[in-house]
Amino acid sequence: MKNYISLMLFMFQAASASFAQDSLALKFVDGHELKLSGRAFNSNQNYHRLDSSDRKLLIPRVKELATNSAGLSISFTTDAKTISLQWRLARWLDQWNMTPLAVNGLDLYGLKDGKWSYVASARPTGLNNSAVLVKNLDGQMRDYRLYLPLYTEISEVGVGVPTNATINKSAPPANQKRVVIYGSSITQGASASRPGMAYPSIMARSQNIEVINLGFSGSGTMETEIVDVLAKIPADVYILDCVANPSPQMIKDRAYGFVKKLRTLRPNTPIIMVESIFRETGNWDSQIGARTTQQNMEFRNAYQRAMGDSDKNLHYIFSKDLIGNDHEATIDGTHLTDVGFMRLAEAIGEEVKKVIGK
Amino acid sequence: MKNYISLMLFMFQAASASFAQDSLALKFVDGHELKLSGRAFNSNQNYHRLDSSDRKLLIPRVKELATNSAGLSISFTTDAKTISLQWRLARWLDQWNMTPLAVNGLDLYGLKDGKWSYVASARPTGLNNSAVLVKNLDGQMRDYRLYLPLYTEISEVGVGVPTNATINKSAPPANQKRVVIYGSSITQGASASRPGMAYPSIMARSQNIEVINLGFSGSGTMETEIVDVLAKIPADVYILDCVANPSPQMIKDRAYGFVKKLRTLRPNTPIIMVESIFRETGNWDSQIGARTTQQNMEFRNAYQRAMGDSDKNLHYIFSKDLIGNDHEATIDGTHLTDVGFMRLAEAIGEEVKKVIGK
Repeated sequence: MKNYISLMLFMFQAASASFAQDSLALKFVDGHELKLSGRAFNSNQNYHRLDSSDRKLLIPRVKELATNSAGLSISFTTDAKTISLQWRLARWLDQWNMTPLAVNGLDLYGLKDGKWSYVASARPTGLNNSAVLVKNLDGQMRDYRLYLPLYTEISEVGVGVPTNATINKSAPPANQKRVVIYGSSITQGASASRPGMAYPSIMARSQNIEVINLGFSGSGTMETEIVDVLAKIPADVYILDCVANPSPQMIKDRAYGFVKKLRTLRPNTPIIMVESIFRETGNWDSQIGARTTQQNMEFRNAYQRAMGDSDKNLHYIFSKDLIGNDHEATIDGTHLTDVGFMRLAEAIGEEVKKVIGK
Repeated sequence: MKNYISLMLFMFQAASASFAQDSLALKFVDGHELKLSGRAFNSNQNYHRLDSSDRKLLIPRVKELATNSAGLSISFTTDAKTISLQWRLARWLDQWNMTPLAVNGLDLYGLKDGKWSYVASARPTGLNNSAVLVKNLDGQMRDYRLYLPLYTEISEVGVGVPTNATINKSAPPANQKRVVIYGSSITQGASASRPGMAYPSIMARSQNIEVINLGFSGSGTMETEIVDVLAKIPADVYILDCVANPSPQMIKDRAYGFVKKLRTLRPNTPIIMVESIFRETGNWDSQIGARTTQQNMEFRNAYQRAMGDSDKNLHYIFSKDLIGNDHEATIDGTHLTDVGFMRLAEAIGEEVKKVIGK
């Protein structure tokens, strides 16, 4: 039975106020009753990306960022003509180079003609939020996918439909491949315009795969404990997009060991190593340019060393192939806009497709 | 002589604090001493888009929005190796579907190999701001272009370079064509990631033209007084991108008269009428879909009626050609991300190129 009453009272109060004018009685279904994608463990306690036992192993900043819901989505099937939303944030975050929507809000996609297509965005206003996502739908039974906030912790979310509508947990897709990405702020989703435009989620839609987003803003620095966490997650491909944060020296010290440990724990799973995008400011600031070049060089060295060990399942993507060459793909020289993310999703997605053999 | 002391004291204090560690003495040049593009009148009093006599004619909301610096840019030539910035906002604005950077911040482009290329973004923190934009430049004499905030009023801006560097007002480009765009929030720049990514500014860079951005968020509703304001601005092309805000009935009532009045006041200047993008939410919400279709239909009727008067200099761009068909170009179903703006700049830019005969 669906847990219609699991949401806090404030939500129902907000709903009554919002929808009184439509004379539309709504029922809200707790997100935990629907299908959660983008993470590898079950819990109806939270929308964290890693469970508490795994989080314990990690450095404090990563431990905290793992509570952000980046890459998580909730899928459901409904014939509702109106879809509403209520959600509560554990924290509100403002970022100068992201929209409040991407950080604290949600967006909805619907499956139409076999393709995931954007439906609407949910405007965040504070810790407790309520929004009519979309009205005047055609009432056909469809699959929807709701992306959770990229850069904060969401503690509760409920999907509201008219009481006479049907809403069900989406069925798990058959034989869906799973990709796990470890990375930095770019992987976590800075600076997508809305949650669904982070590149792991674009890739998931366009290739019909599940992607686990383990991007940790400013903190994708390849601690050895991270490998244990990654290796515990069954995956068809691991992507290491973790060059942006560590210094060249750190990469020299850590990258080879990181890859080798992952290979030992997962002997047969393809690993794709991805260089850092060349920071656009590096085209002007010679120090930033030199640093990015060195970071990528050290990562390439680690790759070549690992290839020397005859690793047939190790793949590599060069920086120059990632985000085009018109210099218009970033918001601040480092973080990608939707332009950059669409290009990155295509570049990495092509390699994933080859590796998975689709 | 450059007015090195026109900026308020706070700015110098901020500068001293910021740059003490670099032991780098800076001089700040007031923006009014440099070349301002994107508006048609001279004033060293403000960075408004319309002067006070024109603003008086307009409805209150447009009058207010005309104080926002959307589309304005400051150009200078310098051999500095470091470029800093100080700016003061009249108001700070938060928007759920825009970045603080786009609303309250600035971004810098540089001319390299004959092309405008992104350099860096200036992070806004409050009403009084100070930022090192870029360091470690090569010290060659170059042209730079600094885009002002899209959605608020900037009251002062100063460009800082080391005291031993040269900084000059950029020379006005020879025979540069000018395009004036009248429109809605989309024209004003919602939701570009940063000021330079609003579509009028992308078009200006890619076609080497000056574009005057007269987009007024939520208020591009074709009042007859606006025509007087537009017609006063000498232009090579007028673009009317003003279908998004008025109701279908308003468009029916106003569009034909608006175009005819502009034609009377400017008998020989090409006018390009642009339909509204089809609101992405309209693919799902039948009412929104029907409304957008009706808006465009009424605009098309006005075009056909005006063409019936044998207007050879009237051009038209259809909705379907504007932002692609993958439904990934908006942040909220209505406002465009950089993805949408790059597509829109190309679509409208192609028509501008044809009309200007470049």
